[in-house]
Amino acid sequence: MRTIDWDGGAVVIIDQVALPHELRTQRLTEVAELVDAIRRLAVRGAPALGAAGALGVVLAIDQGQREGWDDDGVAAAIEQVRSARPTAANLAWGVERVAALVPKGRDDVLAEALAVLDEDAAANRAIGERGADLLLGLCGGDGPIRVHTHCNAGALACVEWGTALGVVRSLHERGRLGRVLADETRPLLQGARLTAWELDRMGVDHRVVVDGAGPFLVARGETDAVVVGADRIAANGDVANKIGTYPLALAAARAGIPFVVAAPESTIDPATPDGASIPIEDRGDGEVLVIAGHRIAPEGSAALNPAFDVTPADLVTAIVTEARTIRPARGERPV
Amino acid sequence: MRTIDWDGGAVVIIDQVALPHELRTQRLTEVAELVDAIRRLAVRGAPALGAAGALGVVLAIDQGQREGWDDDGVAAAIEQVRSARPTAANLAWGVERVAALVPKGRDDVLAEALAVLDEDAAANRAIGERGADLLLGLCGGDGPIRVHTHCNAGALACVEWGTALGVVRSLHERGRLGRVLADETRPLLQGARLTAWELDRMGVDHRVVVDGAGPFLVARGETDAVVVGADRIAANGDVANKIGTYPLALAAARAGIPFVVAAPESTIDPATPDGASIPIEDRGDGEVLVIAGHRIAPEGSAALNPAFDVTPADLVTAIVTEARTIRPARGERPV
Repeated sequence: MRTIDWDGGAVVIIDQVALPHELRTQRLTEVAELVDAIRRLAVRGAPALGAAGALGVVLAIDQGQREGWDDDGVAAAIEQVRSARPTAANLAWGVERVAALVPKGRDDVLAEALAVLDEDAAANRAIGERGADLLLGLCGGDGPIRVHTHCNAGALACVEWGTALGVVRSLHERGRLGRVLADETRPLLQGARLTAWELDRMGVDHRVVVDGAGPFLVARGETDAVVVGADRIAANGDVANKIGTYPLALAAARAGIPFVVAAPESTIDPATPDGASIPIEDRGDGEVLVIAGHRIAPEGSAALNPAFDVTPADLVTAIVTEARTIRPARGERPV
Repeated sequence: MRTIDWDGGAVVIIDQVALPHELRTQRLTEVAELVDAIRRLAVRGAPALGAAGALGVVLAIDQGQREGWDDDGVAAAIEQVRSARPTAANLAWGVERVAALVPKGRDDVLAEALAVLDEDAAANRAIGERGADLLLGLCGGDGPIRVHTHCNAGALACVEWGTALGVVRSLHERGRLGRVLADETRPLLQGARLTAWELDRMGVDHRVVVDGAGPFLVARGETDAVVVGADRIAANGDVANKIGTYPLALAAARAGIPFVVAAPESTIDPATPDGASIPIEDRGDGEVLVIAGHRIAPEGSAALNPAFDVTPADLVTAIVTEARTIRPARGERPV
């Protein structure tokens, strides 16, 4: 089952807000429904948002036909999709790639949107296989490989399979996966909520750990490799990923185990020379100071809430994409 | 105001369960009330528990006199205090030190218990002053020093002043403290709840951050020194402290800023040769998987929940006690 798909005139998504307690799908047939789903994070993750943007163009055309919109009306609806989350680069990319086909007609638009989904699925599968090959080589032996991961770089962030969790999935498929440790990933708990849910459905032996525990568990020999996704990779191999990734890289380097980044080629940004050039969004106090509706800190306290951190290239054993393996710690550069 | 004190025949404590939202004190005049306060973590922190054990002996004698207990009854009540939290070494230490005076009579017992409190307060004050001197020397310049801390090694963990937060307090008193960053400290959030409350009351500019963010904020130059407490210090200088301390030490070493441990001499355990010999308690799934009554992970997921981590001596710039400064990263050993 895909995280996001097209079925009989509707965008069908797994509602990630209902996870991990309920697997609920939603059929979206109107542009406003899709925009709402994006805004409330029912669909999230860079590749999945690319797919949402692509399918949103089809939705705009179909709804326009049903409701008699003119071209300007359709264009306005497409723009609503594109700007549903202004900082999500993949969302705009998906919209623009497919919207370019609008003059050719609805069939071409739908075909292009479905191609976006299929290409994402194929890229993830390739990342998974390449990553599994790499880890089997790096870790040696013929036993199971224990993996530590952070945040959710799984099927739920993509159309299917996943990037970091795609590598985990490929190892599992080959019968070579040991116990997986998943950081809970404060503040939004994507690890405890989403990664644990995916691992549970795969039937993988796994444990959730607080983010502060990861580096010590690496030091204590509880894992054979750290595998994470990426939000942006700079030309020099510095990697921006969910806050809390960098400590795992520090711990892996000290423990002498691989730190592997699994991400599509589209994550590599030639226009960003290094990590220091990556703007780090601060998402404000609320996510940190309020948990499940309860304020945990005094009213007089504020927070710093950087959403991402930067792992320097020298700590990155390998970056695995659908096309290649890059070894930044050895001085190889993605661009 | 002391975290725990003796006043007119009662043990008076700050009820830490009510923090940070309410500053509530409790007057405890019966042994069962004190045992309950210890069990529900209304009083917590190694030095504060030592004081609780010491005052508990006085409480047992006074209650026995009121209610006509014989010596066995008083001894049984003292034993209830001693075993309220079986793994808390300081609690038993406080009980035993004071209980040895029981044959000499109630006045000597009370004097010894008050001495335990006064000695703790004096030790913390000395740690604070020594730590402040050290940081001013290590960080140079004459500007404010920005500190990053983890968990709560504050007045609330002691009788007053605090250890790591005692250093912060001494810097603040000298007008040399910059902005303080406090890790929230999952799973139990002592940083967000207790350290933030202490900093707020001191009027110190501070921010709460998720544990995963600490190392990146160190790398980004947001702090001048990391200062933490300790639960046990091995003879070789390895330091066990609240889970999530080790990643800050890794980050501080890479950033070239001091990583300072502030703790009383009693924390140094000559019987523990190194960090690998320190048993690390796993506190089970509940603290990780349930937040504020809400289960955050799937029902099928379990957790690993080590309560402490071990920072190797080579990453510890200095250990500051009430008596001396030890420099483990330079090869100095506490024992």
